[in-house]
Amino acid sequence: MKKVCNFSAGPSMLPQKVLVSIQSKLANWDGIGSSVMEISHRSKEFLMIVSDAEKALRTLLSIPDDYHVVYCQGGARAQFAAVPMNLLGNNTSADYIDTGFWANSAAQEAKKYCTPNIVKVLATVDGKRTVLPAKSWKLSSDAAYIHFCSNETIDGIEIRDLPETNKPIVADMSSTILSRPIDVSKYGVIYASAQKNIGIAGITLVIIHDDLLGKAKTFLPSVLNYTTLVDKKSMFNTPPTFSWYLAGEIYKWLLAQGGVEAIHMKNEKKAALLYDCVDTSNFYLNNIHETNRSLMNIPFQLTNSELESSFLVNAQAQYLVGLKGHRNVGGIRASIYNAMLLEGVQSLVDYMKTFAKDHT
Amino acid sequence: MKKVCNFSAGPSMLPQKVLVSIQSKLANWDGIGSSVMEISHRSKEFLMIVSDAEKALRTLLSIPDDYHVVYCQGGARAQFAAVPMNLLGNNTSADYIDTGFWANSAAQEAKKYCTPNIVKVLATVDGKRTVLPAKSWKLSSDAAYIHFCSNETIDGIEIRDLPETNKPIVADMSSTILSRPIDVSKYGVIYASAQKNIGIAGITLVIIHDDLLGKAKTFLPSVLNYTTLVDKKSMFNTPPTFSWYLAGEIYKWLLAQGGVEAIHMKNEKKAALLYDCVDTSNFYLNNIHETNRSLMNIPFQLTNSELESSFLVNAQAQYLVGLKGHRNVGGIRASIYNAMLLEGVQSLVDYMKTFAKDHT
Repeated sequence: MKKVCNFSAGPSMLPQKVLVSIQSKLANWDGIGSSVMEISHRSKEFLMIVSDAEKALRTLLSIPDDYHVVYCQGGARAQFAAVPMNLLGNNTSADYIDTGFWANSAAQEAKKYCTPNIVKVLATVDGKRTVLPAKSWKLSSDAAYIHFCSNETIDGIEIRDLPETNKPIVADMSSTILSRPIDVSKYGVIYASAQKNIGIAGITLVIIHDDLLGKAKTFLPSVLNYTTLVDKKSMFNTPPTFSWYLAGEIYKWLLAQGGVEAIHMKNEKKAALLYDCVDTSNFYLNNIHETNRSLMNIPFQLTNSELESSFLVNAQAQYLVGLKGHRNVGGIRASIYNAMLLEGVQSLVDYMKTFAKDHT
Repeated sequence: MKKVCNFSAGPSMLPQKVLVSIQSKLANWDGIGSSVMEISHRSKEFLMIVSDAEKALRTLLSIPDDYHVVYCQGGARAQFAAVPMNLLGNNTSADYIDTGFWANSAAQEAKKYCTPNIVKVLATVDGKRTVLPAKSWKLSSDAAYIHFCSNETIDGIEIRDLPETNKPIVADMSSTILSRPIDVSKYGVIYASAQKNIGIAGITLVIIHDDLLGKAKTFLPSVLNYTTLVDKKSMFNTPPTFSWYLAGEIYKWLLAQGGVEAIHMKNEKKAALLYDCVDTSNFYLNNIHETNRSLMNIPFQLTNSELESSFLVNAQAQYLVGLKGHRNVGGIRASIYNAMLLEGVQSLVDYMKTFAKDHT
C-alpha cells in the first residue's frame, strides 16, 4: 500500500527513515537480544541512549550549560499545572499571554495556584487575525513569570517575538520545538510534548534554567517537581523508555538533516507552498496575518463550507489523511511538522487545485 | 542471537508473540499505511484499539459495570499523589499499610496532603519476614481510605488478604495486576504502572469505583483528576497511544493464554520451581515467609555474598539478564512476570544449580 501523507496535528507523522530503522531493531535492539522496550531504564544500554539523546538535543538547540534537560509525563497539560507550582515561589500572579485555546487552557489551570494576569494580545489588522507585537503586551509588575504558547495549533497562529523583560519567560513549544532555531538563553523554561516534532506521545521535554529550581509548592506531586526531575535525572519514576528512545532517534535524524537551521528552511518552503495555494485561490481561505502564520499548523476553510466533507473524503482516497480541522473550529487543517516532506505538501496542493477546479 | 531471558523488574520482558506481531505491523498498522504511533488518538482506528482494549481488560478481571477504567501518566509515583488529592475529600487522614519501600513511598507522598496513619504490619515469624494477617492491622476510624501495595518488588513480599472494612481499599497493583485473579468489587481504586504485566513504561492503569469520583482537591492537576479522566475518556491530554495500544495487545495475548486464572497457574509453577531451587540449596537464601512470598519478584542472596558479582557476570554470559537486586538491598532478584516462560525459569534454575556446584 502507498505510504499515506499524514497531516494529523499530533500524534503525527514520523520520518520514514526513523520508522524503518526502529522497526528493524524492535525485537533485538543493537544486538542485545531484547527489545529496547524490555530493558531496564537503569541498564547501561538505556543510559547510553539517554546520554546520546541529551548530547544531540543540546547540539540541535545550542542549549547553554546552565540549563537542565529533563523529561516528564502528562504532556503540556501536566506542565500547565507544573509551571505555576514550580515557579510561583511566594508570588501570587504570573502573566499569561492569551493567544488562543492552548495559551488560555494554561491560564485556566494556573488559576488553581495563583491569579494569572491574562494578557489580551489578539487583534484584527486589515481583516486578518494577528498577535500584537510583544513590546505592546501589558505585562504586570508582580508576575513571577511570563507564560506563552509559541504556536496555537488549532488556529494556526505562531508567535515569533518575545518581550524585553527580566522575568523568566516560560514557553509551551509543543508544536514549534525543533522546527526553527531558538535562543534558549532568552527563556526560563521551555516545555514541549513529544507527539509533534520530538517523536511519539507519552513524553514531555522540559528545559529549565538552573536559577528556577528549588521554589516548588509543598503540594506539588513529586513526579512534576523540576528539582526532583533534575536530581533524579528524569528517573524518579520509571520513565517512558520507548518514547525517550524514539526522541533520541529523531534528534539524530534531525542532525543528519543538517540540524534545526536546515529543517527550518525546508519548513518555510513547505508552508509557503501551501499558503500560496490558499492565497492565490478564491476557493480556500486562511485569515491569519502573515506576521503570525504558523509554519507547522495551517488551517484553512473552503469558501463554500458545504464542500468540506467531500474535500476530506476525497483527500483520504488520495492517501492525504488527518486533514479535518479541530472540533472546536471545524474547517481543514494541515499539520506539516518536520517529518512531512515537501513532496507531501505538493501532493496536498495538487489535490487542492484539482478539487477546486472540479468544484468551481 | 539467542533470545535472552530478561528478569528485569520493569521495564521487563514482553511476550515474544506480541513483540513479533507489533514489529511486523509497526510501519503499517492494520493496512492503513501509517504506524499506529502516527495516528491521532481521536481517529476511528485508535478509538477501536481503545474500545477493544477495554473490553479485553474487563473480561480478564471481571470488572463490574460500576467501575471506570482509565489511563493516566506518571506511573505509580504519580498515583501516590493523585490518590490522596482525589480521595481525601474533607478527611485529613488515610491508612497506609507499610509493607516496605513502595508502600512507604506512597505514604511519604501522601504527607503532602494529609496525615497518613502508617500501619506497621511487617513481622518476623520463625526467622522469616512476613506481613501480619489483615484482620490484625490497626486501622484508624477517621481514615478516608486504606492504601496498600499488593507486592513489594524490592523485597519480594506479596499481600494476599484484605481487611474487612467499609472504607475504600486502594491498591497499588503495579507488579501483581493480571498475574492472578482478583475480586475488583472489594476495592475502591486499583492502579498499576504498565511496565511489568501490562506492557511498556509510560502508561498507568486506574480502575475506580464510580462512588469515589467528584471529591478532588482544587489544586489537583487536571491530568491526575479521576473525574476528568473518566469524563474525557482518558483523553484530556494526548494519551501515550503506543503504550495504550501495546496494553491492548497484551490483554488479547492473555485472553489467548486462557485468561488470568490460567496465567496464575503458570505463575505458581514458575515461582515454585525457583523457590524450590533456593530452599533445597545451602548456597542460596530467601528469608520471606511462605505466606507472603511474591509470585512475581523473587529476591535471593548467595550465602557467600562475595560470589554475587561472579554469579551475575556468568548469568549474563548464559543470556540470563536483569538479575541484579535493587540497589537498596543488593543480592539477586528474578522478576518473573507473565511474559516469562517456565522454560526461562528452568534455564535460571539450571544455571543456579551448576553455579552452586562449581562454587561449593
